[in-house]
Amino acid sequence: MNQHPDSIQDAKVAYLGPQGTYTHLAALQQFGDECLLVDCASIDDIFALLESRDARYGVVPVENSTEGAINNTQDCLIDCNVKIIAERIVPIEHNLLVPKGLSASNITSIAAHKQSLAQCRKWLAANFPAVKQIECASNAEAAILAQGSDSTAAIAGEMAARLYDLDILRSKIQDQSNNSTRFLVLADEETSPTGKDKTSILVYAENKPGSLFRVLQPFEELQVSLTKIETRPSKKEAWEYVFFIDFEGHVEDENIIVLFDRLRTCTAEIKILGSYPSFQRNV
Amino acid sequence: MNQHPDSIQDAKVAYLGPQGTYTHLAALQQFGDECLLVDCASIDDIFALLESRDARYGVVPVENSTEGAINNTQDCLIDCNVKIIAERIVPIEHNLLVPKGLSASNITSIAAHKQSLAQCRKWLAANFPAVKQIECASNAEAAILAQGSDSTAAIAGEMAARLYDLDILRSKIQDQSNNSTRFLVLADEETSPTGKDKTSILVYAENKPGSLFRVLQPFEELQVSLTKIETRPSKKEAWEYVFFIDFEGHVEDENIIVLFDRLRTCTAEIKILGSYPSFQRNV
Repeated sequence: MNQHPDSIQDAKVAYLGPQGTYTHLAALQQFGDECLLVDCASIDDIFALLESRDARYGVVPVENSTEGAINNTQDCLIDCNVKIIAERIVPIEHNLLVPKGLSASNITSIAAHKQSLAQCRKWLAANFPAVKQIECASNAEAAILAQGSDSTAAIAGEMAARLYDLDILRSKIQDQSNNSTRFLVLADEETSPTGKDKTSILVYAENKPGSLFRVLQPFEELQVSLTKIETRPSKKEAWEYVFFIDFEGHVEDENIIVLFDRLRTCTAEIKILGSYPSFQRNV
Repeated sequence: MNQHPDSIQDAKVAYLGPQGTYTHLAALQQFGDECLLVDCASIDDIFALLESRDARYGVVPVENSTEGAINNTQDCLIDCNVKIIAERIVPIEHNLLVPKGLSASNITSIAAHKQSLAQCRKWLAANFPAVKQIECASNAEAAILAQGSDSTAAIAGEMAARLYDLDILRSKIQDQSNNSTRFLVLADEETSPTGKDKTSILVYAENKPGSLFRVLQPFEELQVSLTKIETRPSKKEAWEYVFFIDFEGHVEDENIIVLFDRLRTCTAEIKILGSYPSFQRNV
């Protein structure tokens, strides 16, 4: 059914660009230099490339440990038919990057993605309270902006400093020292059980009192551990919600098959987003 | 304990400005023209004014029916000690506003708050696919930008068109026809039960499997209806979550007193954000 190139070397990997974003770093960590990495301008574009088979894999951010869910990714998961085949957790270390020779006192504006500005909110208020903040589509774009300026600094990772020839004026400026982002690897594929897997599903609960409790009951009965639950507007009806649930186990595991049988009796709709190996942190 | 002015006329109401935002509209609907309305540049500023007693009331957006939670408001509710005393639901009708005489074919960029751009995503892709999108801190700022330009349009409400002297080129351009935003009214006050109330709490669940299920169990046992549940990063530990729960009832109601007794046995921490009358929609 899937018409994929035979070798990983020919596989296109679409990631949220431009070059030098944390997603670029996650894609490199996942695939190395073997694949053809293609930077995309938006998360929507990545899902579109996967659905049209113009890319084999996609890498998108889904959640940050300080700032929470990336809504755009969640909404694309609701709308598109693409599977999650892996997850990756990357530590986020923000730096204040400046064009060569720019000193702190001459900075008039600081550019970054809105989530990064939020992740450095306290540090910015303490160190640059009067400096204008510029929201960019990505930190790499902020770095490009700083590169062409004589008074704008950017918040971005080390990789962006190297790629865009900027100096690191301050490092590790994020408010939470253990700040990290979870990325999803997407494809039109299924993965086999490894014995240490996670499954992500979307649940449209019934629109009745106690419906979330009834959705959680089978997990409790079968002792399946939830690792995450999130709500998003269903987009079908105003003030109706869809639940994103991550749990331990693989759709092919015995107990998870029973879980789905029970879930189907108490939900309006379930969409399986994928079963994939739990990410093992290198600690 | 509270040192408030005696009359509502003297009360300062801080809202998310500038003038012409949907929050301004919500503040006017809640308080009429009797109060001194003060526009603030950020949600953080409103909480700061309330905590320093420089404003008596605050009005902030907390959730949109299409785009979901306003994270900044949720994070301030985690950090600050301010009570929710009312909620308000305002229908959001976006318009494409242009400076006098600008035609659709001469628009080179469209400015709006990122949530409004997201709420009109499909309409923009269908009607202005090649036009640059500019993210502004608010729709009112986008209107100000359009006012001073000869090629930039703005997405904003009718009130902004009137205030900033712009023409409405297209009306009701939001992707969901029943798009609305929920606003919270904040103060350092408590409200008395009305018989039709809602309560908002923050719950730090125990970091153990099944903890969310155990948090929901007392609601089920006592037949207390949840109206909403949201997760946010706890900001205490990476990948730990805090739950925002809204339910029907008032902290002084008999069954809600029992509910809290049971909740305290199965949670690490509970913060009561306030009990307040459920908003009655005018339909």
